[in-house]
Order: sequence, then structure tokens, then C-alpha cells
Amino acid sequence: MKSSTKKQLTPRGRSDTRHVEEDPRLIVGVDIGGSNLRVALADLSGTVLGKWSASTRETSSPEMVIAQIGKGIDSLLKDSSASRSSLAAIAAGAPGITDRETGVVVATSYLRGWRNVPFQNLLEAAFHIPAVVENDVRMAALGEHWMGAARRIPDFVFFAIGTGIAVGIFANGSLLRGANCMAGEVGYMYLPGSTEQVAQRGTPGSLESVIGGDGIRQQWLEAGKSRAHSKHLTATEVFDLALTGDRLAKVVLDRSAQMLAHAVYNISLVLNPSLFVLGGGVGMSLALRDATEAVLSRYNEPAQPKLIISSLGQDAQLMGAIWLALDTAERRTE
Amino acid sequence: MKSSTKKQLTPRGRSDTRHVEEDPRLIVGVDIGGSNLRVALADLSGTVLGKWSASTRETSSPEMVIAQIGKGIDSLLKDSSASRSSLAAIAAGAPGITDRETGVVVATSYLRGWRNVPFQNLLEAAFHIPAVVENDVRMAALGEHWMGAARRIPDFVFFAIGTGIAVGIFANGSLLRGANCMAGEVGYMYLPGSTEQVAQRGTPGSLESVIGGDGIRQQWLEAGKSRAHSKHLTATEVFDLALTGDRLAKVVLDRSAQMLAHAVYNISLVLNPSLFVLGGGVGMSLALRDATEAVLSRYNEPAQPKLIISSLGQDAQLMGAIWLALDTAERRTE
Repeated sequence: MKSSTKKQLTPRGRSDTRHVEEDPRLIVGVDIGGSNLRVALADLSGTVLGKWSASTRETSSPEMVIAQIGKGIDSLLKDSSASRSSLAAIAAGAPGITDRETGVVVATSYLRGWRNVPFQNLLEAAFHIPAVVENDVRMAALGEHWMGAARRIPDFVFFAIGTGIAVGIFANGSLLRGANCMAGEVGYMYLPGSTEQVAQRGTPGSLESVIGGDGIRQQWLEAGKSRAHSKHLTATEVFDLALTGDRLAKVVLDRSAQMLAHAVYNISLVLNPSLFVLGGGVGMSLALRDATEAVLSRYNEPAQPKLIISSLGQDAQLMGAIWLALDTAERRTE
Repeated sequence: MKSSTKKQLTPRGRSDTRHVEEDPRLIVGVDIGGSNLRVALADLSGTVLGKWSASTRETSSPEMVIAQIGKGIDSLLKDSSASRSSLAAIAAGAPGITDRETGVVVATSYLRGWRNVPFQNLLEAAFHIPAVVENDVRMAALGEHWMGAARRIPDFVFFAIGTGIAVGIFANGSLLRGANCMAGEVGYMYLPGSTEQVAQRGTPGSLESVIGGDGIRQQWLEAGKSRAHSKHLTATEVFDLALTGDRLAKVVLDRSAQMLAHAVYNISLVLNPSLFVLGGGVGMSLALRDATEAVLSRYNEPAQPKLIISSLGQDAQLMGAIWLALDTAERRTE
């Protein structure tokens, strides 16, 4: 009431112009990956105005990442004829254990291994706007829940399979983070046929050593030891080769599908989600999804898990970051 | 304000007497088990006034269970010099898939197999008070969260091991039930060393066939095939025998502990709870807890699960039912 009275006392034309120029009306979403950094600029309705990306292969320190983000933001703002004063909030997804409450990236094996980096503070100091950080897979789950394959579904699991494996979980309509921000680190899961060796810090977990991207390439190399074959295929290429009838590739696909089916089934027993959304470079493979679904069709007690491939693809994390930045902007202006 | 004015207009002595007699001031908690039915009467502060139990070995139909509950309630009311008009609400925990929203026991392999029994309606029709039903293991988790080992802990898992195996989950401070009320049915979980056979309806799941009560007795019988030994030990007795140095019993204990450790670890990876509370006839075994903890002490990536034994023991479900009846009474009078 007070502020609207005040507005009426100000000459209308001038007030409006100043208002439009200075009012924070844009937000930034960031996806920090082991290979790429991606930045998106969106307006307060969530419409993406532009995207920018750069390689992180030479990037290591948090300061280097902040500088890259700044470069991306300035490039996107320029394209939208806007300035940094238009920014309302920024949200960044980081690979590894990330504590959203404290804004700290606790540990990651990417970016040459961060430990306890107060990344939210660094973002706020650099850009002078409210910032928030979250684990990248949980960020992708937020994206899928907002506008992807799991839109408005209260209980679902986003299952990311790339170099590493982890899940982002919605239960009772909200994102699960666990007692120490480690919910969803299922790459360490023990299953029939997985190694029973105890995982050590920095080495792949029991599950991801078999069906993470490197694990599948390793399976492929071992399967083909006795004959000359295409050594340099990616996991997805091996799976596609299996569909053409290649016997060795089919062995790798079947073993991977059986193990993924056990992982999905075990998680389903714990959470009973409506849906599993498969994402990540390996997880998006249609061949893997179909083979896993064929295994799961036999598992119908107490309920058969349902699998679909992410509709947002590699944009899932970026969309989640945009949603979280919007949420942050709204909370700070409440 | 209105009602307090009214009270002052009524002759004090008579009003108070009528008030005390008619005001619903007691609630009922019920634990329906495969072997026993237990009923507790409590006041609105949650103080238990009395407990009653009866065998359910001869009980099958829902109507028989309702009649037994009625008998228990009347016996307890008599002991407290109260009548059925004093009752404010009733909550009952049932073994099997139970939908609290609709009040239906969807399926249970106990009580000779109920299917889609509208038990909430039956309770309300029989006792003319608000009723609620919930799965027994989730009920136990409510009890532990209210006044047991997990008091006020927002993220924990109640791990019940008896004849069957299931978990009750608190995450983000609330009970998880899943998309189809099947969250926590981990008795079907696949682990290294468990059968890879696909579970069928009504048969024990992969995990419970090894470390459920019957599974452990089966392990014991198989371990002792080659020598005369005590065939009729319970699971807990086998574990205690292991502590005295019996080699065969130790094999059974070690195998059970390894499998339980894998199950706990896998669930911990999904949910990252602060705590696992062990309950149920087998789960309460100190020997099993210690042996499992010894295995888990090697698993410290990304976090080492913490195990404690239920402090409420066989009362966990009954306490959960009392809490839920209190909650129901409060909601209905809001």
C-alpha cells in the first residue's frame, strides 16, 4: 500500500523508464560439467533468451569457473541488449556432493577435485545477486519435474548414466537430498554380478564400474579380446552395434541391461516411484532402455518400474538451474 | 470466545459432569499382525492407559478382526471406567500393501490373504469414530519418529526383519509411501549372493528368502546337513549360538550380516538417512546388528550407514498407531 501511494507521487513517465531499466528481470542458470560449462539466460517467466557454452577441460579452480560464467553471462546479456543490473538471481549445478543449504560444493572428482568450495558465496561476490548451488543430477530432476518427462509427477527418479551414475529423487512432491546431501549416489550400489570390492574415494563405485561410460567401454574391450574389433566405440555405439546383430556387442548390452534393471528394480522397491526418467550420455541410449525394459517386464512383484528417456536431454540440468534461479529470485523478493 | 461465554451461562457442576462423560478423550491404536492382534488405549496426551492382545492364528476375515478389536477395546474401556462414547479416533496398522488415503488394505499374504479390504470403512462403521489404516512397517516408523530411537530425526529408515522384510522411510521429515503405497518393500531386493530368480506373488522375495526368519532357519538347516545339530532353533538363537563359537552358526550369521550390510548400504545410497533403526523379531538381534556393523565399517564411501536397534521393540507399531490416531482426532476436530 505504501509503495503504491509513493508511485503516484512520482512523475509517471520518468518513473516508468527508470523502473524498466533497473528492475531485475532476468535470471541465469548454469550447468558445470566435467567437460563443458553451459550458461543460459532467461526472463522471469522462464523463457530462455540464449545459451552459451565453453569447454572445462582446461578449467580447474573455482575462480576459473566463476570467470568463465562471467564471460558467458556478459555474452548472453549483450545479445539481449541488457546489463548485469538486469540480473535477479543465479543458480548453478555442480557435479559431486553439493550442500544447497550452505552453498558449498563439498566434494567432486571432476574439475580436478574441489573440496569444500563455498561456491554460492563466490557467485554472490562476483555477480552481486542471490545465488544458489545444487548437485547436477538433482538439478536435472528439478528440470524434468518443471518441464520435462516428469512434469508435475510427485514421485519419480531421474537416473543419470554418463561417466558416473547417480539419481535425483522426487518423493512426496519434493526433492530428496538426504541427511548429508548424498541421497542418490547409487553408482556405489552392490548388485548380483557387480564387484564386491569395497569402493575407495575417487574410484568408480561397484555399479558405475560396470555400466558407467568407462565401464561399458571396458566390458567391450574385454569381450573382444579374442578377435579384432572396433576398439574405439562409445558405450552408445556398442549398444547400437548390438542391434545390428553383433554377438559381442549384444553380450555387453545384455549384461548392462540386466544390471541396470536390477538397479532400477532395487531403487523402485525403496521409493515406489511412478516413473524412472533415464538421462545422461549412456542413459539416453534407446537400445539400452529397450533391453532394460525387456528384463524388467519379468519383474512385476510388487510393481513393475516404468522407464522413459529424458525429454530434455542434455538441457535437463540447465532447465533445473533456471527453475531454481527463478525460485531463488521469488523467495528473495517475498 | 463464543463457547467460553456459553459455558459461563450453564450451571457449573452439571455442565462439567456432562462434559467429562461425553467429550471424546480417548483414542485407540491397533497393531494387526500375522500372529497377534494388539490394541492400546491412550488419552489425548498420548499416555497409554492399557494394552490388550489376542492371537490371530485362527483369525482370517476382516469381520473377525473387527470383532477382536471390539473385544479388546471394550476390555480396555472397562479397565479405565470409560465407555465407547469416550473414543475420539482409531488407527490400525496392517501387514501388507495398505493405502492410507483410501483406507484400503490392498493386499496382504497374512490373515489368509486379504485383497482390497476397505478396512477404514469397516472400522468407522463398527465404532462410529474417525478411523485410519496404514502399513504396519510405516506405522512402526511413525512410532520410532514420535518417541523411539529416531525421535525428531527427519531422515531415517526403520528396517523391519521378521518373517518378512520391509522398511519404513522418513525423508525430508515426512513418511514416504510411494506412488502406489509400496515404498519400502525391500524384501525383494537383489544383492550379490541372493537368488536371481524372479519373485512371484505370495512367495518370499530374493532378500527375505535369505535373511527373513524362515530364510535364516533354512540356512541353518542346510549348513548343518552333514552333522547332527539343534534343528529347531529360531534365527535369533542361531545368531546367539554363533557368539559362543559354533562354527556352523557363525557361517549363517556372517552370511546374513553380509547380506543385510549390502541391503542397508544400497538403501543408504538412495536415501542418505542419518540412521537405520533395526526392528522386528530377527532385526532386534544384537548379534546380527554387531556383525552387520562390522561389515559396514569397511563401507565408508560416500557415507557409512549407522545402525541402532529399535528402542520401542514390539511396541513400535502400536506407538505409531497411537500417534496416527491422535493425529486423526486432531485433524477431524480442526
